[in-house]
Amino acid sequence: MAKEGVEKAEETEHMIEKDGGKDQESVLTVGDTKEMRAVVLAGFGGLNKLRVTKKAMPEPLEGEVKIRVKACGLNFLDLMVRQGNIDNPPKTPLVPGFECSGIVEALGENTKGFEIGDRVMAFVNYNAWAEVVCTPLEFVYKIPDGMTFPEAAAFSMNFVAAYMMLFEVANLREGMSVLVHSAGGGMGQAVAQLCSTVPNVTVFGTASPFKHEAIKDSVTHLFDRNVDYVPEVKKISPEGVDIVLDCLCGENTGKGLGLLKPLGTYILYGSSNMVTGETKSFFSLAKSWWQVEKVNPIKLYDENKVIAGFSLLNLLFKQGRSSLVKIVVDKLISLYNARKIKPLVDSLWALEEVKEAMQRIHDRGNIGKLILDVEKSPTPLMANDSTETSEAGEEEEEEEDHEGDTDKERMPFIQ
Amino acid sequence: MAKEGVEKAEETEHMIEKDGGKDQESVLTVGDTKEMRAVVLAGFGGLNKLRVTKKAMPEPLEGEVKIRVKACGLNFLDLMVRQGNIDNPPKTPLVPGFECSGIVEALGENTKGFEIGDRVMAFVNYNAWAEVVCTPLEFVYKIPDGMTFPEAAAFSMNFVAAYMMLFEVANLREGMSVLVHSAGGGMGQAVAQLCSTVPNVTVFGTASPFKHEAIKDSVTHLFDRNVDYVPEVKKISPEGVDIVLDCLCGENTGKGLGLLKPLGTYILYGSSNMVTGETKSFFSLAKSWWQVEKVNPIKLYDENKVIAGFSLLNLLFKQGRSSLVKIVVDKLISLYNARKIKPLVDSLWALEEVKEAMQRIHDRGNIGKLILDVEKSPTPLMANDSTETSEAGEEEEEEEDHEGDTDKERMPFIQ
Repeated sequence: MAKEGVEKAEETEHMIEKDGGKDQESVLTVGDTKEMRAVVLAGFGGLNKLRVTKKAMPEPLEGEVKIRVKACGLNFLDLMVRQGNIDNPPKTPLVPGFECSGIVEALGENTKGFEIGDRVMAFVNYNAWAEVVCTPLEFVYKIPDGMTFPEAAAFSMNFVAAYMMLFEVANLREGMSVLVHSAGGGMGQAVAQLCSTVPNVTVFGTASPFKHEAIKDSVTHLFDRNVDYVPEVKKISPEGVDIVLDCLCGENTGKGLGLLKPLGTYILYGSSNMVTGETKSFFSLAKSWWQVEKVNPIKLYDENKVIAGFSLLNLLFKQGRSSLVKIVVDKLISLYNARKIKPLVDSLWALEEVKEAMQRIHDRGNIGKLILDVEKSPTPLMANDSTETSEAGEEEEEEEDHEGDTDKERMPFIQ
Repeated sequence: MAKEGVEKAEETEHMIEKDGGKDQESVLTVGDTKEMRAVVLAGFGGLNKLRVTKKAMPEPLEGEVKIRVKACGLNFLDLMVRQGNIDNPPKTPLVPGFECSGIVEALGENTKGFEIGDRVMAFVNYNAWAEVVCTPLEFVYKIPDGMTFPEAAAFSMNFVAAYMMLFEVANLREGMSVLVHSAGGGMGQAVAQLCSTVPNVTVFGTASPFKHEAIKDSVTHLFDRNVDYVPEVKKISPEGVDIVLDCLCGENTGKGLGLLKPLGTYILYGSSNMVTGETKSFFSLAKSWWQVEKVNPIKLYDENKVIAGFSLLNLLFKQGRSSLVKIVVDKLISLYNARKIKPLVDSLWALEEVKEAMQRIHDRGNIGKLILDVEKSPTPLMANDSTETSEAGEEEEEEEDHEGDTDKERMPFIQ
């Protein structure tokens, strides 16, 4: 993804050249075709690196679909991107966001299968958090009539990733057990719902205690995310579990592997542990990301265990597996139409509210997926909370961030 | 397995206490119920540590089946056991062997489902290479009428392991590709046959050139095991393969992982590289076994790859998964009855010929499985080749083996 990311970032840089510093508008009329609002990440760091600005509107190249965006998904990965806490981070400024839903507004050449006006959801290699997105045909999927735009934006990444991990990487079958962390989040809920499509699957989940009541129907056994889940799981299932999905990292790899039954599969799909606090330098976080415990294949042999990594974005944008993902999306839409799965939307946020939305993910306040609703106006209370405060000073501060942990001086966004 | 191994070894030690030094007999009559012939490994090391001797015949405990053995399977693992090149090796002397076929001769208490006279195949936690074996009920399976005893002895370990790796650990489906090493061996042939039960599966195999003609119908693309298979595979399939089954070790883990397509699965199931030569000390081999390259889960995440280890014996004897294996055996017997798979037997050997048989595996001369045929007399030519030569001297030499590589003075068994 790194390479594509860099290319996109350069493109972004070029595009905003003429637009920097312009004031944002809360609503853009359809007639205003040359500019669009977008969330821009000015540099890696805290929430104050995000702002909404106007940018030149992209036009579709050959094989691309131009989408008038209605809703965008906000993922934990976006917090990592904001902190620059990913391998080979792209250059800033950039427009974050990897998924959106909306209406096809124009088509590049050689884009069969879509028509203007189609309701679609799409993956984008950055640039999703904008009023208009262009992305190659292969990453665009029509959405069923009954699915709302926020649902569609909450659907693609979480459900595709959950499905592929459970059924392609692991081999979830009747009677198995699954452990998922952050069970109350968008991914956790996708996992829980997909598990419910297989008879007699036990789901173990960790989540903040205040979420337990809300998600107890989807998760068989819920544990407080602040306590050690290993003894809790073993109390219920002394032999362990068949599948561990780990969005955490570091010490959890060993713990997750240790919890596996023979022939069980541990899948590392993310790293929410890496985004531990707004007050920490992202460079100290990046360090721990790379210090993850390595695995001896002989141990896997002795214990009959499987360890896997899963990155949907790499699969799509680095490894050219969009045709495989398309098949999975079709299966998921069938499950949606059969009312077996339904994306759980936590809340809708205006583009201007992206910081509050991120803070909510960071504080683990969400139950289900956070959605940026492009047509939503910021709530009056938040509208005064300027996204441009002390811009120059922050830019200077950024240089120091690279050297050490100066973030202690930063104020949390929501006080 | 270590724990059970040690226990069995102690039992063995006790059993042969009164029998040590007795001359072997080539045929034992049925009436002679108190003693039996067995292959005994006197200590870890070269072929000269093996001999055939008389031992007290075991009687079935509660839940055990007593089998009059007709044929035993000889696996690469047996060479590793002989060299002591396994984790926590059991104490010597011991009777090697993990699988056999034969006729039920007696039943312990609480052994429902079997009758005296039943034709069966069985897993044993050591002690298979004997005229009589007792093993718990859960490791015994009836064999179909059409299956010969040598076929049955060639069936259980290789086909069960191949099936579980392809269909339980990995998820072999139509159109996928599989790389298997030692494609001409018992395991390689089981893998190739099972791959042929799924439409449009491409099998890449490495094997000694002289075997290519014999196995070319079962393997789509054959490579000389002495050349680097990576560029050869990439020439045909630039994206790599979906499943790599690796019975080698060390540098091959990295090579195997590198050959995987995204979402591909690498399975380490053995370590034939560890048995590199009769002239090498098994302690230097054990060292390389433990120096296998470790895997960073982050790399798996970036590349969307899966790494697994598979040990059927651990699954059976350490991890209590016999009921799962039973289901697999039933499926395999259905495939056998449908004539979709058929164990390939390379050659039959008398117990007294176990050294020659091992040498043949070591020299990679076999195409298919080597079987110890318990009722077979040694061929006259080999019968003179005493298995008891200079026994005392060797025992003294063994101490030195622990310190360094003194094996150069050993003569190869077949000259």
